[in-house]
Amino acid sequence: MSTKETSMGFKPIEATSLTDLVELKLRDFLQEKKLKAGDSLPTEMEIAEALGVSRNILREALSRLRMLGIITSKKKRGMVLTHPDVLGSLEKVLQPQLVDKNTLHDIFELRLVLELGMADLLFMRIEEKHLEELDKIVKNDDSTNPSFRIKNEIAFHGKLYEITGNQTLKRFQSMLMPLFDFVLKTEKRVVTPKVSHANLVELIRKGNIDEFKKGMEEHLRPHLDALANINK
Amino acid sequence: MSTKETSMGFKPIEATSLTDLVELKLRDFLQEKKLKAGDSLPTEMEIAEALGVSRNILREALSRLRMLGIITSKKKRGMVLTHPDVLGSLEKVLQPQLVDKNTLHDIFELRLVLELGMADLLFMRIEEKHLEELDKIVKNDDSTNPSFRIKNEIAFHGKLYEITGNQTLKRFQSMLMPLFDFVLKTEKRVVTPKVSHANLVELIRKGNIDEFKKGMEEHLRPHLDALANINK
Repeated sequence: MSTKETSMGFKPIEATSLTDLVELKLRDFLQEKKLKAGDSLPTEMEIAEALGVSRNILREALSRLRMLGIITSKKKRGMVLTHPDVLGSLEKVLQPQLVDKNTLHDIFELRLVLELGMADLLFMRIEEKHLEELDKIVKNDDSTNPSFRIKNEIAFHGKLYEITGNQTLKRFQSMLMPLFDFVLKTEKRVVTPKVSHANLVELIRKGNIDEFKKGMEEHLRPHLDALANINK
Repeated sequence: MSTKETSMGFKPIEATSLTDLVELKLRDFLQEKKLKAGDSLPTEMEIAEALGVSRNILREALSRLRMLGIITSKKKRGMVLTHPDVLGSLEKVLQPQLVDKNTLHDIFELRLVLELGMADLLFMRIEEKHLEELDKIVKNDDSTNPSFRIKNEIAFHGKLYEITGNQTLKRFQSMLMPLFDFVLKTEKRVVTPKVSHANLVELIRKGNIDEFKKGMEEHLRPHLDALANINK
């Protein structure tokens, strides 16, 4: 945080509204007091008095912390700290019509990074039943219907994320999905990758992680080539 | 979203408070009207009337959208839609004392996935000046001071993220950093990886991406082994 002083000796206020400031003070308070999930907060009246702000402003700021999932209200115990749903608020803003073009592009790259990087977790945790589930998805792969093709693409890669056993990763991926339709439109032509979903399943069965990694790179090659042609 | 009906024929309300409900309705409104950054919103009074809620409740819900960076207030134009800072609210909740243990573990894995997966972007965008910057960081690598070692670790991997040119990825990484101290403590002993930072820079210079990927895997091997030993 900036501690630059203006010519009059004032420190600039980081927040842009009184509610922003109160929100910031509340979050600082939680951190300084090292409060953890399950701990109780002072009452609204006590906090409002301590900060010297109106109940309305305080309620707005508390409402933000409620949305973030940091606090909740419990009968008889008042406000209590909770484990936040870390991806909850990210989910609310990840909508194609809201996000700017550069961020959309960044997120598309992020998806490629995740798919290229998750091979180790995948090989660590894959079981026979997962291979059978992948087989089923791949069986439907030869459809020539484009919208079906996209559904199948999501089902296949979604299953890979699921197999990693990492709930946060899996949920992150499903949140990123709606953004890709939008980005894929900027890739002018659909190139069929040399390594298909069926090939990738074969490579997993074979059990050689390095070969699988190269296979995944080839599978994603059309997107990687499209990126390389964009001047960032 | 669930559309299950209860025995009396009511649809359950997804939101848990009136403010949650108003927030949801506002976000649905933006999506249905396909509003984009720069578009104006109706006035507070008009929205409060249309929803049949008090100005106080509406203000709480609007304050949440302000925090998400979806709306802002402009002189003479009233409330206007903006491009949200997608990682802004995630940053507010990613604090070690707030996040539950499973999520912390997931996020630590996510970091490994990112580091293993970003080689393609790295090789696509690395320039001579970046190699020189990496050399400088590596030169300080032989310190035996443990806290310096962590700083150097952050500097080296942070630089790799920076070189990918992906701002969202870079910022995401710097947000994840404070959580790792905490997770690293669960890895009982510090194992020196066979492939050092200096080796990784050599591999980048050599220009063979497959060798670099294997090198990065070896570099992260102690963490990967620690994961494999944890029953998820």
